[in-house]
Amino acid sequence: MKVRKFAVADASFERSPGQDAEIFAGNVIDQRDGGPITIGFGRYAPNQSLEEKLAVDDVMLVLEGKLSVTSEYGTVTAGPGEIVHMPKGQQVTIRSHEQGAVTAYVTYPHWQEAG
Amino acid sequence: MKVRKFAVADASFERSPGQDAEIFAGNVIDQRDGGPITIGFGRYAPNQSLEEKLAVDDVMLVLEGKLSVTSEYGTVTAGPGEIVHMPKGQQVTIRSHEQGAVTAYVTYPHWQEAG
Repeated sequence: MKVRKFAVADASFERSPGQDAEIFAGNVIDQRDGGPITIGFGRYAPNQSLEEKLAVDDVMLVLEGKLSVTSEYGTVTAGPGEIVHMPKGQQVTIRSHEQGAVTAYVTYPHWQEAG
Repeated sequence: MKVRKFAVADASFERSPGQDAEIFAGNVIDQRDGGPITIGFGRYAPNQSLEEKLAVDDVMLVLEGKLSVTSEYGTVTAGPGEIVHMPKGQQVTIRSHEQGAVTAYVTYPHWQEAG
């Protein structure tokens, strides 16, 4: 595999599977590339929410806006430059605020195969 | 493991091992937490460089400044919000520019055990 650079403009966004919210994800590296991890970007419209049980370890870095993640341990809110680590097995609700959000994510293993 | 949030202020920076450059790394999640991935933040002083052969898959997201990564495939340069994927096994030279850089990184598996 090559060393490669990605920007949010490189992602082809699709609606996050299994839900109707205005939340979109676009992988830039995934199982088709032959490595162990998925890398992508996410876009959240204002005031959206998504509930999921994590099938993989998910690292989400906020690039723009703000996101709150609620789990059994309470709620954390992250803004630009901040990271939320969502370990495999956790049940989470991810909420965007009035300004929406753009994120980058890394998962191990590949979320589209584990889902 | 808990869902947790991290900012650059949560990292305890140490000089990147095996070199003398003004380049510092601070893990916020690593092998001591029991999961499969390491998460951390990096700080590069202006005009520094680091050569390494990647013992792990390394995802680097630029938060501030700019970094160039040279490999056998050429050089990519990333700024704020951009990601460089450095696959395991690649030989890379990472260079900061006049403004230095701050990064977030995710590795699989843990780089401190693989190095």
